[in-house]
Order: sequence, then C-alpha cells, then structure tokens
Amino acid sequence: MNQLPREFFQPRSIVIAGASKKGGFGSGIPKLLKRSGYADRLYLVNPREREIEGLQVYKRITDIDAEIDLAIVVVPRDHVKGVLEDCAAKNIRAVILETAGFSETGPEGARLEREIGTLARNAGMRIIGPNCVGLINPHDRFASTEVALEEMEPGNIGVIAQSGVFGNIVADWAPSQDLNVSSLVTIGNRADVDETDMLYHFAADERTDVIVLYLEGAKDGERFRRAAREAAARKPVLVYKSGRTEAGKRAAASHTGSMTGEDGLYDGLLRQSGVIRASSFQELFDLARVFARQPLMKGSDIGVVTSSGSLGVMATDAAFQLGLHLPELSSATIDALREEAPPWMNVKNPLDLGPSHLFGAGLEAALRDPRINGVIAIPVIPYAIIDSLMKAGVAPELIFGDPEQIRKTLPDKPVVTYTVGSSSWLSLIRKMFGPHMTLVSSAETASKALWALHRYHLFRAAGE
Amino acid sequence: MNQLPREFFQPRSIVIAGASKKGGFGSGIPKLLKRSGYADRLYLVNPREREIEGLQVYKRITDIDAEIDLAIVVVPRDHVKGVLEDCAAKNIRAVILETAGFSETGPEGARLEREIGTLARNAGMRIIGPNCVGLINPHDRFASTEVALEEMEPGNIGVIAQSGVFGNIVADWAPSQDLNVSSLVTIGNRADVDETDMLYHFAADERTDVIVLYLEGAKDGERFRRAAREAAARKPVLVYKSGRTEAGKRAAASHTGSMTGEDGLYDGLLRQSGVIRASSFQELFDLARVFARQPLMKGSDIGVVTSSGSLGVMATDAAFQLGLHLPELSSATIDALREEAPPWMNVKNPLDLGPSHLFGAGLEAALRDPRINGVIAIPVIPYAIIDSLMKAGVAPELIFGDPEQIRKTLPDKPVVTYTVGSSSWLSLIRKMFGPHMTLVSSAETASKALWALHRYHLFRAAGE
Repeated sequence: MNQLPREFFQPRSIVIAGASKKGGFGSGIPKLLKRSGYADRLYLVNPREREIEGLQVYKRITDIDAEIDLAIVVVPRDHVKGVLEDCAAKNIRAVILETAGFSETGPEGARLEREIGTLARNAGMRIIGPNCVGLINPHDRFASTEVALEEMEPGNIGVIAQSGVFGNIVADWAPSQDLNVSSLVTIGNRADVDETDMLYHFAADERTDVIVLYLEGAKDGERFRRAAREAAARKPVLVYKSGRTEAGKRAAASHTGSMTGEDGLYDGLLRQSGVIRASSFQELFDLARVFARQPLMKGSDIGVVTSSGSLGVMATDAAFQLGLHLPELSSATIDALREEAPPWMNVKNPLDLGPSHLFGAGLEAALRDPRINGVIAIPVIPYAIIDSLMKAGVAPELIFGDPEQIRKTLPDKPVVTYTVGSSSWLSLIRKMFGPHMTLVSSAETASKALWALHRYHLFRAAGE
Repeated sequence: MNQLPREFFQPRSIVIAGASKKGGFGSGIPKLLKRSGYADRLYLVNPREREIEGLQVYKRITDIDAEIDLAIVVVPRDHVKGVLEDCAAKNIRAVILETAGFSETGPEGARLEREIGTLARNAGMRIIGPNCVGLINPHDRFASTEVALEEMEPGNIGVIAQSGVFGNIVADWAPSQDLNVSSLVTIGNRADVDETDMLYHFAADERTDVIVLYLEGAKDGERFRRAAREAAARKPVLVYKSGRTEAGKRAAASHTGSMTGEDGLYDGLLRQSGVIRASSFQELFDLARVFARQPLMKGSDIGVVTSSGSLGVMATDAAFQLGLHLPELSSATIDALREEAPPWMNVKNPLDLGPSHLFGAGLEAALRDPRINGVIAIPVIPYAIIDSLMKAGVAPELIFGDPEQIRKTLPDKPVVTYTVGSSSWLSLIRKMFGPHMTLVSSAETASKALWALHRYHLFRAAGE
C-alpha cells in the first residue's frame, strides 16, 4: 500500500488558492487557520487581491518563495486545472481540492475529474477531492474547513466521509456527543485519493483505534475489499453505506457522482471483511463511541441491569433478535442480591432493580458473574426524585452506587449505558457512569453495540 | 363502552392511603399535590401518624367526613385489600392502586390481584393498577406521582403506558422533546382498568388528538382489537409493543405480569385496526409529535429538501424502502428554481441545495409542487458559518429563508424536519422551523413519519 503524505494531516506550511475577502470557504479557512496558530506558515493566493486578513496575497502559487507542504484549493471550477499545474510545478505533494461541479454534475464534469486524476498520478502528487472539505485534525488543531475546532476534543476515532457537508456537521455535532476524533476526512468525488487510501491511512495511524466510514459507493470494489479486510484485521472498522435503494442510488449519483452498486453485494463484502455495518447515522456514531472506549465482548451472554422494567424488556427484545442471550444469573449472584433485595424484586436477568437503591450492587454483581460477557446498564429515575434527594443533600450514589468506581475495579467486560430523561439527568448520568460505560441513544443500539463488540471479537479471534 | 369516571382525571377531592413522613411515594405525592394547589381537598391516611405536611392525618378512610372523588393507595401489599374495602364503603368511584408485588411476582400475587378485580366489580368502583403510578394531567396540574409538573406543557397527546417507571421517565423527558401530553396514564397490572378502557377514554377525550400506547401484552385480545379499531377510526393510535421475542416475553412477565402473546398476531391485529406500530421508544414519541401537529398526507409522493446531500440520500433510502416515492419535480418548479440556482446545483428530487441560500425557496417550491404530497426538510450547515454570519449581524434567514412564514402560507401538506448539529444549532432550528414542521430524530424516522401520515390517511379514507 502507498501511504498518504503526512503533509495532509500535519502540514508545516499551507497555501490557500482562492483566498478571498468576500466570505465563503476562501475567507473562512484563512481566518480559522490564523486563529489556530498557522499565520506564520500560511500563504494566500488570489490574482485580484493584495492583502487578506493582514497577510500578503500572491498572484500564483509559483510566486511563493518558500517550501509548501499542502495546498487547499477553493478556486472556481474553470481555474482548477491551472492551479493544480502550479501545485505540481511547486512540488507540492498534498492537495485538498474543495471546488465542486465535477462528476456529480454530469459527463463534462466527469471528464474534467478524470483529467485531474491523471494530472495527480503524472506529478506524483496526491489530491483529496474535488467536491469535499478535506480534513479536520483536532490533535494538531488543523482543519481545511471552517469548524469550531476549539470545541472538538482530540480522540481516537478516525472518520472517513464521502461528503463535505456531512464531515462538517459531524464536526459540529461531535462535542455534544462525546465523540472524539483522531482525524475526520471528507474525500468527495475521489479524483485521486479514495476510501481505500484512507482506510490504509487510518489502519496505520497510531492515534486511531476505531475507523468509521460513511460511504455512498466504493471507487474500486476489489481494492476496497482488500483494504477493508486488512484494516479490520488491525482495528474495528464501522461502515454506514447509503444509496441502498434505487431512489437512494440516483440521489447519491447526483451528490458525489457515486456508483453505489448492489446493496446485497456490499452486505456480503463488508461481512466477509470483518467490517461492522451500521444501519443509521446515529447508530454509526454510537458504535464508534462504544468501540473507542470499550473492551471487546468474549461471548454472546449478556446481562441487563435496569431500574425500568419496560426499557429492560426493549433491550432484551433487541438483544434476542441479534442472537445474544440473557443467561440465568449464577446462583452466587442471585444469593448475594437476594439478601439485600426487597420482597417485590425479581432477582433474574434482565435484573429490574426498580427504585431499590441496589443499582450499583446489581451492576457489580452482573460484571462479576462468570456467566455474563457484557452488560447493558439502564439507570432511570424520575428526576423529581433525584432532584429532591439532591436538594436534601443526598448524593445520587445512594441509588446508583458508585458506577465509575465499580467500573475501575471491573474493567474487562463491556458496559453500555442507555437512559431517558431531562437534559439535567443526561448530564448527571454522563458524569456518574463516565465514558467507560458508554452512553448510547436507544435500547436497540445498546444491544447492537454489544453484538458488534462480540462479532468483532470473533473475527479477530478467527484471524489469530 | 363503559366510560371511566372523570374523577380519575379531574378529582375534586383526593385521599392518599399510605401517606408518610419517611420518603418514597407516600411522602412525595402529598408534597406535589399541595404544591399544585390541592391542599384544601387533600386527605391523608396513615394509622400511625397525626400530621404530615401540615395536614391532619386520618387513621382510616372511613373516618373522613367529606366526599372523596379519588383514592391514591400506596400502602404495603398486605394492607391493600382492607384499604380497598374502606374505599368501597366510602363510595369512592376511582382508585389508583400503586402498590407493587402482585401478578408480576408469581401465583400468590396473581391470586390477590384477581381478588382486587372482583372487589372492584362488586363495588362498582374502578381501579387503576396495581403496580403503577396512575396518571399525570398537566392541563389541570394533577398527578398521582412525583414529577416536575411545572415543566410539562399541556398538549394533545394521550399516553397510555403499562409501566409506572416508563410513565415517569416519559414525563421527565417530555419537556426537552416538545412532547405535550393531554394526560399520561400508567395502568400497571390491570386488575380492573386496562388498555382497552383507556383507549376508549382517550378516543372520547376532547383534549386528545393522538393516542400513544406502550403495551407489553393486551389483557383481552378481542376487546382490545375492537377498541383499537374504534379509537383509530376517530384519532391516530400509535403503539409500541414490547415482549416481541421469547426473551422479551419472559422479561415482560416478570415486570407487569403480562402474557405478551405472539408478535405476528399483534402485527396483524394492529395493522387491520388502522393502528400505527412504532419500532422503538424514540420512534413512538417522534411519531406522536408529528401526528400532534401535522396534517395527514394524501398521497405517497414526497419531496426531500436538504442542504446535505448525504442526509438527503439517507432519507431517500428510508422513504423508498417504506414504499414512498420521490417523483420528478414539476417543470414549473424546476424552471423557477433553475433561475436562481448556482451552476453546481442539481435541481431534482431530492433537492440538494447545499450552501446556496436557496433553502427557503426550495422548501416553498416543494410545498407548492402539485406532484408532492409531503416534505422532509433537512436544514444543516456548519455552525461555525451560521455563528460568524450571526456575529456579523446577518440573520440565519439569509440562508434558510423564513420557513415559519412559508409554512403559514402553505399549511396543507405535512413537513417533518431532521437536522444534526450542536445544541445551539438544534435550538435555532426548533425556533426557525417551529412546531408545525416537526423535528424528528433521524432521517429514517422522518420517512417513517410521512409514511405513517399517509397510511393513516388511507385508513380513514377507506372508512368514510
């Protein structure tokens, strides 16, 4: 495999072709990069301006008297080829081409796009795009698109998205979702760099523990299959593939010019490669968060620990449909809990603890139970009750124990948390249960996450 | 049908049997009702106390020298029968029995529960419960359980839940979800009042436009089928049925003592009755919110108006799988939009407007297009861009138009909104798009909601 230049992710110097005073990408990106500390290694190009954001503006890239690592190109479509030729002349190895209007618009755009690919290969230059916003690297506070970089926590999830807007909105949404990325890359129409290159990149990237891919259609099915398998052999790879239906395919074609292919083929290809396929946007990122923090699950037997019988039934239904099992608790676990349990409590699996103040004890017992490989924790309580407890100076730990401490003592099995309530309640649960009992957004996703942790464990175990 | 006493929902006087100083239900409910303005018509019963919350405490219900509309019973299980006999002697017509420990715990509890049912029928008294928290009526600020009543907005959604905790957490969650209920009722083990009684109640209730039911298993399949059909002939009825799998059934049996039955039978029964079945908790309430505000959809042709191509493809996939169609836009619509559209824009359906500032125009054109029966609106934009616009004094309307005004002019087709972003972004969208272009939580749910609005339209049209 041909590693991507590291200049894409950690450029020491950057040129922006198409910098502008007028708003839009050409004005937003220089602002952002200046704010992020790149001012002294940022070069702006625009034939009609002399100064933007207090920086000198060059007429052409070839006028710059310094070595350039990365070019961000946002000029109008008809100027793209000339600018790329200048990039090549200047020996730039990495280009992010954001301009739209190529294969997604029809045959003429597709022809231009092919020429760009050829140009890249002839010059030994790598190009991300066109029709993308490039990448966001919160570790180094670098982004080729205007986002709230300050709010993004650097993390260990590598995200590959075909579409630019998709990348930007994930970046916006991430902080509210405890979603911490290593880098987030939008690849657009893939005149040169494609999802396969990116899979190889993240498979090798030390900062990345989980790879997430939003795909409309693979550029080259066979290369993609190989890359997916090689990447999945090293790290979990999670994919959401859209353009699943006839109408979706047509929509994808006019969006990133993708040929999306037969959905059944993708399903087989992904399964054989050890890739986990998500069934929705929310599920994709819920799974990413879980894989970023949780150990794999070594068997298919799970425990459900809940203070709501109903939500416990929902999680149980979903788990059963995925082929997970809820075994009887071991007699040691049952005896230990029965001693403390009020008479109305059924000590079984799912373990419905109601308002018993035994949530912590139940969670600990389930994690210690040798019959159980992973746990779904569903702490819910009317906020009015928690609120009046807290106002009376009683800590919520009275009811839920100290889940984070329990987790620290028993870190080897996955735990996913699901809850419902007011935003104050959600914040409290995030704090009490911590990132290592990852919060997901539905009972169904909690089960899917444990299923995926087990499936990936089997795939890895088979390969070893 | 035998209408439930209105005393359940709007009691003029209330007795709480099992009032307590010690915390728990017995202490929380008197506090709440006092705070809600019921102090002067609230009677507390506890053989071992003389005063609670500044109110006189009676030893027995029969000691009270006033007419009582409603009894809330929270005494320990072994005292329940005696207390109910006192309720009967006092001619109380409505009893909410919250105590747990009946059929959900085994044969002995089931026997007691049957006795309670018999007692109710012999006395001509109606009993909700046991193993429930009764009901919450935000219109009259009445609740038989401790919840944040002040934060709940009264609305037009009637909610029937089997489980008490479920009811409480929905009440907690509702304000953050723009979910406004007429009443929320938890029916528990159904010694007497069951889901069928409640369906008839809400079908007749003038404050209720949509009925939502969380069901583990119907008490009497044939009565339920009839009630569901009669209710659905008047108002949309949305059901989430759990205990769908073997493991889920066992869990439900130990939760509310429900026999959940064969899932396939329910599926057929609900479909034939014109009931919409939701596939998750979140979907159930997303649909409720949509039905509470949207007109029905008169055909199966929808338009997708989006500023994100990817999310547009996801919505299209989901719509197509449900049997909805995305027709070509009419030539008048296309011509009107092409005049303003930038060259990179594909004027088709889904209508991907990107960052074009044409969102409002696109939304309006889709709503006016005679080929389109309903619209999915997906406004997304990197918050950094909106933020810098707003800081520069530019209103977000520059990009999204004035959707609320457009909606007011064109109210006849349903519009559901889906977006992704930071919490500031979500608030902005809620404000800009308003409740009448209801926000739902995923692209899939947006499609499901339009599908449901169409399906229910067909059901109603067939009956007329």
